[in-house]
Amino acid sequence: MTEIPSTMTASVLRGVKDLTLEERPVPVPAADEVLVEVASVGVCGSDVHYYEHGRIGPYIVESPMILGHEVSGRIVAVGADVDPARIGRRVAIEPQRPCRRCDFCRAGDYNLCPKMEFYATPPIDGAFCDYVIIQDDFAYDIPDAISDHAAALMEPLSVGIAASQKGGVKVGDTVLIAGGGPIGIIAAQVARAFGAVDVVIADINPARRELAASYGVRVVDPAAESTTELAANVFIDASGATPAIVNGIRSTRAGGTVVLVGSADEFPLSVPEVAMRELNVTGTFRYTGTWPIARALLESGQVELDSLVTHVYGIEQVEEALSGEGAVDSLKRIVLPRTRRVEEPSVRAAS
Amino acid sequence: MTEIPSTMTASVLRGVKDLTLEERPVPVPAADEVLVEVASVGVCGSDVHYYEHGRIGPYIVESPMILGHEVSGRIVAVGADVDPARIGRRVAIEPQRPCRRCDFCRAGDYNLCPKMEFYATPPIDGAFCDYVIIQDDFAYDIPDAISDHAAALMEPLSVGIAASQKGGVKVGDTVLIAGGGPIGIIAAQVARAFGAVDVVIADINPARRELAASYGVRVVDPAAESTTELAANVFIDASGATPAIVNGIRSTRAGGTVVLVGSADEFPLSVPEVAMRELNVTGTFRYTGTWPIARALLESGQVELDSLVTHVYGIEQVEEALSGEGAVDSLKRIVLPRTRRVEEPSVRAAS
Amino acid sequence: MTEIPSTMTASVLRGVKDLTLEERPVPVPAADEVLVEVASVGVCGSDVHYYEHGRIGPYIVESPMILGHEVSGRIVAVGADVDPARIGRRVAIEPQRPCRRCDFCRAGDYNLCPKMEFYATPPIDGAFCDYVIIQDDFAYDIPDAISDHAAALMEPLSVGIAASQKGGVKVGDTVLIAGGGPIGIIAAQVARAFGAVDVVIADINPARRELAASYGVRVVDPAAESTTELAANVFIDASGATPAIVNGIRSTRAGGTVVLVGSADEFPLSVPEVAMRELNVTGTFRYTGTWPIARALLESGQVELDSLVTHVYGIEQVEEALSGEGAVDSLKRIVLPRTRRVEEPSVRAAS
Amino acid sequence: MTEIPSTMTASVLRGVKDLTLEERPVPVPAADEVLVEVASVGVCGSDVHYYEHGRIGPYIVESPMILGHEVSGRIVAVGADVDPARIGRRVAIEPQRPCRRCDFCRAGDYNLCPKMEFYATPPIDGAFCDYVIIQDDFAYDIPDAISDHAAALMEPLSVGIAASQKGGVKVGDTVLIAGGGPIGIIAAQVARAFGAVDVVIADINPARRELAASYGVRVVDPAAESTTELAANVFIDASGATPAIVNGIRSTRAGGTVVLVGSADEFPLSVPEVAMRELNVTGTFRYTGTWPIARALLESGQVELDSLVTHVYGIEQVEEALSGEGAVDSLKRIVLPRTRRVEEPSVRAAS
Repeated sequence: MTEIPSTMTASVLRGVKDLTLEERPVPVPAADEVLVEVASVGVCGSDVHYYEHGRIGPYIVESPMILGHEVSGRIVAVGADVDPARIGRRVAIEPQRPCRRCDFCRAGDYNLCPKMEFYATPPIDGAFCDYVIIQDDFAYDIPDAISDHAAALMEPLSVGIAASQKGGVKVGDTVLIAGGGPIGIIAAQVARAFGAVDVVIADINPARRELAASYGVRVVDPAAESTTELAANVFIDASGATPAIVNGIRSTRAGGTVVLVGSADEFPLSVPEVAMRELNVTGTFRYTGTWPIARALLESGQVELDSLVTHVYGIEQVEEALSGEGAVDSLKRIVLPRTRRVEEPSVRAAS
Repeated sequence: MTEIPSTMTASVLRGVKDLTLEERPVPVPAADEVLVEVASVGVCGSDVHYYEHGRIGPYIVESPMILGHEVSGRIVAVGADVDPARIGRRVAIEPQRPCRRCDFCRAGDYNLCPKMEFYATPPIDGAFCDYVIIQDDFAYDIPDAISDHAAALMEPLSVGIAASQKGGVKVGDTVLIAGGGPIGIIAAQVARAFGAVDVVIADINPARRELAASYGVRVVDPAAESTTELAANVFIDASGATPAIVNGIRSTRAGGTVVLVGSADEFPLSVPEVAMRELNVTGTFRYTGTWPIARALLESGQVELDSLVTHVYGIEQVEEALSGEGAVDSLKRIVLPRTRRVEEPSVRAAS
Repeated sequence: MTEIPSTMTASVLRGVKDLTLEERPVPVPAADEVLVEVASVGVCGSDVHYYEHGRIGPYIVESPMILGHEVSGRIVAVGADVDPARIGRRVAIEPQRPCRRCDFCRAGDYNLCPKMEFYATPPIDGAFCDYVIIQDDFAYDIPDAISDHAAALMEPLSVGIAASQKGGVKVGDTVLIAGGGPIGIIAAQVARAFGAVDVVIADINPARRELAASYGVRVVDPAAESTTELAANVFIDASGATPAIVNGIRSTRAGGTVVLVGSADEFPLSVPEVAMRELNVTGTFRYTGTWPIARALLESGQVELDSLVTHVYGIEQVEEALSGEGAVDSLKRIVLPRTRRVEEPSVRAAS
Repeated sequence: MTEIPSTMTASVLRGVKDLTLEERPVPVPAADEVLVEVASVGVCGSDVHYYEHGRIGPYIVESPMILGHEVSGRIVAVGADVDPARIGRRVAIEPQRPCRRCDFCRAGDYNLCPKMEFYATPPIDGAFCDYVIIQDDFAYDIPDAISDHAAALMEPLSVGIAASQKGGVKVGDTVLIAGGGPIGIIAAQVARAFGAVDVVIADINPARRELAASYGVRVVDPAAESTTELAANVFIDASGATPAIVNGIRSTRAGGTVVLVGSADEFPLSVPEVAMRELNVTGTFRYTGTWPIARALLESGQVELDSLVTHVYGIEQVEEALSGEGAVDSLKRIVLPRTRRVEEPSVRAAS
């Protein structure tokens, strides 16, 4: 059995654009928790936002915090109430800890739990480090066929699944997605798995369109051609751009659903558009119960995530990973913990 | 059997604030239609809007048109395919004629039919006249216990039913309604019938609050007290006022539903509000299948409409009825056809 | 503050029709639990069944067990993690303890939790005793306006709520209920609160029909008149009798829902009936999230439970309470703990 | 333009196992109808049942009737209200004519229309003939990529779609299907298109299992191995066999759905099974709105139908086609109208 050290290396955000590499104690799992040796951590737009602004809306970084919440790894220790047979298992982590007792939790909507503790959301530490703890049932076994990176990316995949669930994507649907970044491409793959037969990504960036097209998704340049005639059953915004949202709403058929996933601030919603065409405008906040679905989609090959990884960084390069310098056409950037540096060198990360 | 004249008196809108009383031919029912002698017609905000502006959004009055779409009456003749036993029946009219063949109609969403012909929506004539025609199955028998006025007001009642249906109001819910006009008061009664246990109307107008309170509804002045702590399951906007909508959205609990019924233009929708709290923002456009429910609610006494009628006008007073002069505290104003003038004089409208 | 004794009096089922009164240690609340001094306990058909047969389907009484799971009381002590301010509060108990971690629990369907521990279901003790423990969030505050008996009966009320929820009872519906016992009468009141406008109870027993009618429910004798023409939207079986179920299914309209609440064994389901009329046949197993709704329905007066209590017994009379001797026309029989004997004597049970 | 003859050859069922080939007048399309020259007609189990028994449940063949309701063809004439541009189009026919006016039709549930006229359901003629008429909107354009046979089989494909719709099959689901005949294989393909990741067909016939397996579906022999541990989200019965239904219900997880598609008569439904595990037992009767979905699934390649066609017969061989003599391992048998005999000879039909 692996010996667990008492300290680990962590990349700590101390303020806006102020990251330091620190030695921190390895966390100790509570009775219902497992200790996971981190294998791969994806960089999310929210990590970048905290790094650059020190906050996202009401969530403010007021004390030093570890970023990173797209995580896979291997269980190396378990709490008293957890089956010790889990030690050694490769797992993907659902990085949230709901209270399980409030009305939302009890109704199954634990993503709306007001007492939620979520990785890399102040003041909860994330995973740019060697070890993390999570409650037993939020660490999901993954088969060998799913890589460490893909397992980490089950988190953004869950975002995509939640979007199609909230949108009610169904067999035969036309789905329009604004934004050809990682979330857009993942959402498109998921929409097809839900049975959508016409999935279109709109992005004004030609490089992103090209990338999206390489996933077999139909792409359009919304600056050049109208998408109104699409009459999409579901529109998913993964762009956060007001013009894209307004255009997407217009491209949704009467009775259709608009799912806001991107982090826009405010946009002018036309009441006649919504009321006279009976649109449903909604959004997603994280996810519930998506990891088993994510695993099934990866195992069946309906979704493919490895090819999204364009850059891999070591933990001492988190600043580069977050700033994205020299990674213009990146889709997903991955940070490896120190313990992984030898076996899996950061070959693609420009240095 | 009543003899049907060949012409009738109609109040015709010829342009902005240009109404004339004209003799028009009595319409002839097609094979699947009935001819209804009008008994009572409610004045709707949309009638007022056409009178004052000559249009509502994309709908423009381009040729002379009869207003009025909240109608009850008595069947006096039937088309070839209609059971003659219906002659003599008192009916409430669902004032729409969907195509019954498009995807929306066939899926049951006939309110979204792109070929819809709707009373008093250009260029279709409405009911400020003596006789109207409607397809057989859109004229609903009403029992004696339902008055002509209440039968006419089954149309705004249907708007209220559609709001609770779209909002998914359910037993135990808290429902916030903005706007204490007729639609707000009807929507409140309906929400209670759907099982809501806390129904609150917010209106800045003290007279309207007092009226609403007389229906046993809890009322608040949104200028004086916050409604945020209500954490409503459903918010129904029947005000059309941007501040009321923004306030209502804030007063809706996470996962709740916002139903836009009022005719606002555009308002700034906060994406974090919608996405991070997973609100569902939607609206209603007319209704489908609501008349049988409306009748049941009236018969069971769960909804009461007669007391909403504050003013009754003769057909030569349509201008007064639409302008609302001298009717400051009015709730519902009713127009009677010429044929009804003797039996039911306009006692409350005289000024 | 009340002093809590170390032992209490409990009515213990030791075998088929073998009840003894025993001194048992007062249970000690765990960190997340409260200790409730019992005020009132309803007698359920399942209690009677365990008493008479020692089992219900797969659940077998293999060691001594306390019956009773319809409970109200007052919190007299709390665990370490519970707000001490709760001490002294009158509460209604939701008598179940789900694991909160399995897929069912996390999805909000905690009634289906395979690790559920439920009062008076072997081997978990129930409430025919002086004190019980329950997790904090399953003890619901009740206002003074709700009596101890009514608070206890929020459990069967929850059964009725679950029936209407599962049946999707909605405004304007016709609901047929088989069986005019307590569950039938409660289910009828609930169906009305959900908006049903025609609620009919079918029972072959004239005394039960008379009782049900006293609640303003329409009653029919299924032996004397057909209910097929009802074309009910929802049929709720609260009888457990095969002929009643078969008749109810025939009386449900195409596309309607059949909810099996009664504990029948097996009945011949006609596939053409189900398939060609697209019926939905389902059932309820306990409930989730119903106590807040139950409280709201009691507070609003939409449901009334006190009048259902026809017999009240002391804890030394549990045998009489369960056997129902001399209580032929009983609806709900209540058992009081020893601590309540003085203040609230069993006036109606004496015979 | 093709000249339309005045008479056509039709295979007419005159009584049990009494088929004759007759000259019949070519039907004349009403104003809203199209005349379709038949290209391909699938043989359905219901056709066989009428041939062998002269009835299906309440539907009795009382006068001579043409069988066949799985039809594709080409529009050769249109009624007065239909766009003449449709002449020449290849179409798949949805073989039903709902009234469009009853509550069911108006709510979108036109399959439940009590006035439905359906091909080959007494007394409505079907399509074992040269020409048929159908209302314009029930004849769906098909692209060249969809063969005549596949277009005809969009009818059983619609049955499969309705099964997954009714079952609520969703991404990640496990779906168990009883019966490896054409409907079972189609239902399996559809379930995968709905996102099911584990689709299992149970059939006791090894030849059918082998065929089903050739479609990439997992197969089990229910006589040899238990399927209980599958804990299927949805069970679809396409077998009509009581033991298969009972076994399937046991293999469905708590909260899951059972969809009865096969034409079983009556089976013993265990109330504890349904109630304590909150199963939903339902069935499908035909379909609504499925042809556009069927077309999309064929175009995207998610469903493949041509390989199901094992035998093709001429119209003078309808008796052979229905009796299935010499076609033991058949999946779908097709009947060609006389007009198609030259171009597409019945190569595979044993004679």
